[in-house]
Amino acid sequence: MLDPVTRQGRRDRLRQAMLDAALDLLVLGHPANVDYASGYRSVAADIIPGTPIAALLGVDRLVLVAPAADAAAVDEAGVGEFVPYGRFFFEARDPHPAAAASDRYGSFLDALGVALDGFGEVGRVGVDGGLGAEAVAAVAARPGVDAVVPASDVAYRARAVKLEGEVDALRRAAASACAGIAAALEGAGEGVTERELASMVASTMAAGGAQPRFVVVGFGERSAYGDARPTDRVWRRGELARFDVGCEVEGYWSDVGRTAVLGEPDRRQRDRYAALVAGEEAELGVTAPGVEAEEVFAVAVSAVEAAGLRPYRRHHCGHTIGLEVYERPVVAPGWDTPLVTGMVLCLETPYYELGWGGMMVEDTVVVTETGNELLTSFPRELWVVGS
Amino acid sequence: MLDPVTRQGRRDRLRQAMLDAALDLLVLGHPANVDYASGYRSVAADIIPGTPIAALLGVDRLVLVAPAADAAAVDEAGVGEFVPYGRFFFEARDPHPAAAASDRYGSFLDALGVALDGFGEVGRVGVDGGLGAEAVAAVAARPGVDAVVPASDVAYRARAVKLEGEVDALRRAAASACAGIAAALEGAGEGVTERELASMVASTMAAGGAQPRFVVVGFGERSAYGDARPTDRVWRRGELARFDVGCEVEGYWSDVGRTAVLGEPDRRQRDRYAALVAGEEAELGVTAPGVEAEEVFAVAVSAVEAAGLRPYRRHHCGHTIGLEVYERPVVAPGWDTPLVTGMVLCLETPYYELGWGGMMVEDTVVVTETGNELLTSFPRELWVVGS
Repeated sequence: MLDPVTRQGRRDRLRQAMLDAALDLLVLGHPANVDYASGYRSVAADIIPGTPIAALLGVDRLVLVAPAADAAAVDEAGVGEFVPYGRFFFEARDPHPAAAASDRYGSFLDALGVALDGFGEVGRVGVDGGLGAEAVAAVAARPGVDAVVPASDVAYRARAVKLEGEVDALRRAAASACAGIAAALEGAGEGVTERELASMVASTMAAGGAQPRFVVVGFGERSAYGDARPTDRVWRRGELARFDVGCEVEGYWSDVGRTAVLGEPDRRQRDRYAALVAGEEAELGVTAPGVEAEEVFAVAVSAVEAAGLRPYRRHHCGHTIGLEVYERPVVAPGWDTPLVTGMVLCLETPYYELGWGGMMVEDTVVVTETGNELLTSFPRELWVVGS
Repeated sequence: MLDPVTRQGRRDRLRQAMLDAALDLLVLGHPANVDYASGYRSVAADIIPGTPIAALLGVDRLVLVAPAADAAAVDEAGVGEFVPYGRFFFEARDPHPAAAASDRYGSFLDALGVALDGFGEVGRVGVDGGLGAEAVAAVAARPGVDAVVPASDVAYRARAVKLEGEVDALRRAAASACAGIAAALEGAGEGVTERELASMVASTMAAGGAQPRFVVVGFGERSAYGDARPTDRVWRRGELARFDVGCEVEGYWSDVGRTAVLGEPDRRQRDRYAALVAGEEAELGVTAPGVEAEEVFAVAVSAVEAAGLRPYRRHHCGHTIGLEVYERPVVAPGWDTPLVTGMVLCLETPYYELGWGGMMVEDTVVVTETGNELLTSFPRELWVVGS
């Protein structure tokens, strides 16, 4: 679990964003927003999509609505006010709040109503996209609610700037992904399969305490397939391997990309990879407070093309990352959001050519007052295996 | 990827369930249903909740709607008809369907409309809970659509009976979870932390090629906390450890539970665990075709209480499992669904007492013509570590 200072700091940031948006109450149902607001990450909400859960953040209080099955873990997490719904029996000889959670309220909507009661008459309420239509309607129907407005952006704005404890978790997640790729490449050789390498990546991440989330490993023509799942295809001499790997530490994600060749790379592999690295390094060179996200994108595309890979067509060359793998802003056209100290970005310049192969390099940085600092510390060159 | 016979068999089952429900078309947006219908599992839909995706299954065709970024993987999977949306550039020297996917349709709703066009005038359309409200409204507004009806249950009914290839994947997922728990208990001793054991479980599952999904490990009083995340708490002599573990193989989940004690168990630990095993074994004894799910529940509760753990209060004592960890029917009151050969169930009798601890035993079976067969093969007794 994150330290108490970081948890309080996140809640303060969210509350400030709420006030800046002239809102009196936030009702958030997206698990990442619930975590950010309350400090609580529900296992059930993670593994059973659609498990309803909500954090209600007002000017001076926070209330969590979650299944009764979460009651003991919520109590331990020190969330404070908690309204459980549904049936789950915790026995107890001595009084314990979780022992009284079962059957308190029958449904999520019942519990949400009770949670809303506690806030009295609120004027403007912000809701995120994680709340179902029925829950939004229930909020809108409350006496005293003047307006219900979409507030996903409010939450993303708060979450965009990371606190020290968040950067620490992101750094550990990034290091774990790097360690996974490195272990796989050290163990790799002719005849290894995509699945075998993916297993090495994932088991290394898991052994380090991270939760593996995605492990894309593609060889040869499959390296061009984007987010394709690993297969039993074997790695043959001269072929590319593209890695795109992510895991989670304390809810914070990583997303790291690297490319390798089995044996000596040919001229085209070297030249193209050099162009992609030039693009990513150009991004690293300009990423700083005040620079707009779309400027970083433009710099990346120009640098790749200037280095000889033309045309270089991309919809984005990076994204912010945190409690979700893609946050906002995105490093893409149309995102004129200026970067701010504390934002954490994945910068990437992938290239996919069907029939030939795919390559990528992707690193993570935190924006600092003077520019940026890498959270990934890991050779950025084209990896050469078994030559 | 599952073998072609299983993939076709799943689609046939779904189509039959559609016809049985007097529907002309299914429009499914839940990733598990999309996988079941199409054979395609999108990485993006896995890791970015809310990524819209849909499978449209009619009497004689299937159309997949997914992001353009999925185009190469979809083509490789041999899904057939595919309508991509959004921007993602695959380059190609020779013509390739994925190279033409970018910017074909701007949004998911645009692509969904084109996919629906291909089916002409359809009368009754079933939709699942994975489709957003806007998508459902778009379906309802099509000329020729007489009715739009909820069809999540239709999909669950089709998915409830597993084909041989599905049972094989579920068996491998169950074996991987068992191997993870066994490895952790072999490596465990005094002073080990919950996180350390959870890492051993997860890395063992990942090394075996499965994707870890949840690893609950709780010691002492934390073993009673239900689905709580592992912490740095150390295991002390005499204390319980409760494991509740799941992973995924080819999209199919496992969910296995075991309990251990560090050193010799005391009388109460032994007696209570024996009662829980008696409950699970009673379930194993009655699980057979024609028996209703709620009867299995009643048998479990009676057997635990008869063995001396009274009162034994539970909301369920098991659930079906497949492309989701909780499918339907559930082994709980109100589920009078008769079991059918080919259903795969997790049978479990957990007990949570705050201030004392939690225990559970959970195994997976497939219903056979003569009863059931275990997919978990793993000692069911109370594990005794380091005595």
